Amino acid sequence: MAEFDLIGLIRERAATRADVLLGIGDDAALLQPPPGHALVVTADTLNEGVHFPAGTAAADIGWKALAVNLSDLAAMGAKPAWCTLSLSLPRADVAWVGAFVDGFLDLAGRHGIALVGGDTTRGPLSIGVTAMGLVEQGAALRRDRARVGDDIWVTGTPGEAAGALVLGGHVPGPAPAGEVASSARAALDSRLARPTPRVEAGRALLGLAHACVDISDGLLADLGHVCARSGVGAEVRLDALPASAALREVFGDASRVLQATGGDDYELCFTAPANLCEQVQLALEQVGVDASRIGRIVAGQGVRALDAQGQPPRAGYEHFG
Amino acid sequence: MAEFDLIGLIRERAATRADVLLGIGDDAALLQPPPGHALVVTADTLNEGVHFPAGTAAADIGWKALAVNLSDLAAMGAKPAWCTLSLSLPRADVAWVGAFVDGFLDLAGRHGIALVGGDTTRGPLSIGVTAMGLVEQGAALRRDRARVGDDIWVTGTPGEAAGALVLGGHVPGPAPAGEVASSARAALDSRLARPTPRVEAGRALLGLAHACVDISDGLLADLGHVCARSGVGAEVRLDALPASAALREVFGDASRVLQATGGDDYELCFTAPANLCEQVQLALEQVGVDASRIGRIVAGQGVRALDAQGQPPRAGYEHFG
Repeated sequence: MAEFDLIGLIRERAATRADVLLGIGDDAALLQPPPGHALVVTADTLNEGVHFPAGTAAADIGWKALAVNLSDLAAMGAKPAWCTLSLSLPRADVAWVGAFVDGFLDLAGRHGIALVGGDTTRGPLSIGVTAMGLVEQGAALRRDRARVGDDIWVTGTPGEAAGALVLGGHVPGPAPAGEVASSARAALDSRLARPTPRVEAGRALLGLAHACVDISDGLLADLGHVCARSGVGAEVRLDALPASAALREVFGDASRVLQATGGDDYELCFTAPANLCEQVQLALEQVGVDASRIGRIVAGQGVRALDAQGQPPRAGYEHFG
Repeated sequence: MAEFDLIGLIRERAATRADVLLGIGDDAALLQPPPGHALVVTADTLNEGVHFPAGTAAADIGWKALAVNLSDLAAMGAKPAWCTLSLSLPRADVAWVGAFVDGFLDLAGRHGIALVGGDTTRGPLSIGVTAMGLVEQGAALRRDRARVGDDIWVTGTPGEAAGALVLGGHVPGPAPAGEVASSARAALDSRLARPTPRVEAGRALLGLAHACVDISDGLLADLGHVCARSGVGAEVRLDALPASAALREVFGDASRVLQATGGDDYELCFTAPANLCEQVQLALEQVGVDASRIGRIVAGQGVRALDAQGQPPRAGYEHFG
């Protein structure tokens, strides 16, 4: 493993920022946090065969390794600032690393986050990223701030990544409703391969949302974490969950269970006071993100899924939290 | 993989600090950097079979995974503050994780560094740590600050970890000079298993040292990085390299090559103006760290190893840098 050659390849292409006093190439990076901000830090690792199938395109892995971390920053309402990358590779494959870096730096550039350090080591394919962001003092979105009476919202159209995982045979799930059109399949696959971290949405929600979480583990499960940390319960109306056209085309009515319980989506689920409904909608429109009101925070604990008649559905939805 | 149970196990035991606004348990940690400081960030991963042999004691792996990162902070003169841990495990082995955390938190406690986040995932055994430290504005030690005429110093007695690797058959190297006493072997093994990050030494060198690097890749190789970054050359007197009694006992004259080229030592190599020699010695004595002057920064490039007569040695020392 020619560690220094690979690091050189990465360093040459990494963009920097004015607040990076010293980037890749020393024992550690030197960074200048601005006054009046908290530092927001998250670390997530992707392992081949666990978080992505063997043979996944290197550029997609690069994108996703950063995206899942940016999604965590988004859920806190933070501006991305700096990141480190720990890359374990079975062999020093320059072409693979080049394509990986293409995907990684494409997304990094969109969010102005600078790659400032890390390491390359020999080992089974694994990508560890630590992302650091900044949020104005006292303004961070947290899981433990939901209040009884809050509306529950979700961005985008969850379930698509889960649909792609089911179609690919990577996880069990409902059968497609009929023959699967290649256009619909491609739409779902692209959401799995290149999730969109909702960074601008997280920023737009500062001062409006009470609690926020990204739904990497599935909507009901992650909302369950919010309820547990906030000491509240939640009621979610399954008929209000927003499904994409592609998901509905492929899975029909079975889309619901993917929307409610499928993982790997990286949308934001947040709560906000009911009287701020229009302001929330407007703030998200301004950053080009759709969001839907899907339920209500209630006294108690745990998440209850309800059908269009306000009744618990027959099956397929565990009691989360 | 019961990720949440393992995270809960770790969270329960992790100490916190006043500047941790929100630790393990949300999408990301919230931290409060103090004014007047730069943030120092490093990330290093240890993979089983590459950085430690299969069967290494879990507590030793935990210690070392943090130690190699603290060593990077030490080389910048930073105070350790916060860290994240990404743990990939073949299976959710609670006893193994408990022992791993014993070693990790033992060292963390000694340096007041708080574990604030990370993840546990399924995969081949791999430990990724990102460590964050703080250093006073403009005071950081860097690789690119060596000046012609500087003395070159090294802390401790390098070569012991390399000696243990050779005795264990993990890397090629010189044969022992005779029968290996178990006490000497144990002394070398403990330096490999539980390296001492020179955090206090790095702090003591602020304002005294010009350039600094940790010698994880071997003394001559890492000094070569300092030379390349600083645009200078170096002459190292092999007879001045400090050998431990255990290393000399086991390897005799062959200790030299281990001291000069062996990796995994985590001592600091630094340069300082010749006229500050006594102040350097005194500052390090006050934190209980031995250091030796081993050479001189010169004009030119690359590192030249010299024997006691000031001549290049016959063999075994490549030209580094």
